[in-house]
Amino acid sequence: MPNQAAGGGHRAAPVHTDPDDVSVLTALSALADPVRIQLIRELAGSADWTRSCGSFDVPVGKAALSHHFSVLRSAGLVEQRDKGPKRVNRLRRGEFDTRFPGLLDLLLRTDNAD
Amino acid sequence: MPNQAAGGGHRAAPVHTDPDDVSVLTALSALADPVRIQLIRELAGSADWTRSCGSFDVPVGKAALSHHFSVLRSAGLVEQRDKGPKRVNRLRRGEFDTRFPGLLDLLLRTDNAD
Repeated sequence: MPNQAAGGGHRAAPVHTDPDDVSVLTALSALADPVRIQLIRELAGSADWTRSCGSFDVPVGKAALSHHFSVLRSAGLVEQRDKGPKRVNRLRRGEFDTRFPGLLDLLLRTDNAD
Repeated sequence: MPNQAAGGGHRAAPVHTDPDDVSVLTALSALADPVRIQLIRELAGSADWTRSCGSFDVPVGKAALSHHFSVLRSAGLVEQRDKGPKRVNRLRRGEFDTRFPGLLDLLLRTDNAD
């Protein structure tokens, strides 16, 4: 059952896209959303694999949040792992920066915090 | 009649936004569209004020095109002038680059042409 997460979870394992395979349109579309910008900013300020999906301060329900993480994975921005009952995250900062130099920096500059 | 273009045109004069007043979300949203990416790429390859709105190779009608140019003006990306019966354009490359360094470069890099 390839869709079942290792470790006996019942959710489908998250599918990832390598930043090298992401178009500039896909990257910009993923970033052009206030909720996803907030997720990225919080992830950028946290150590890898320390943030579960439910730990972010965003005003959306579970289904919408799941969609936002799916968009972020598809754009090569976020990697996810199942860790017991939780799905934890890391920002793919280095790989994404190599593919799109400076793009995440623009988002994370404090003077762009609006 | 402040909405009437100088020179006797009957259209409302185009309203512009300075790139300094543009949020990163507005900028990303304006760029995250295939038609607008095409408009920007063609403008980047043309001298200022040489391209009329009807001269771009994009698969959209007049009303949609007018909306796309409005989005580009609101994001500080394009400046427009009425020149006789035509509305001509320039990419605000320098000002936009100062506000969002590297962002247009990502879009215009030939290896991102997808």
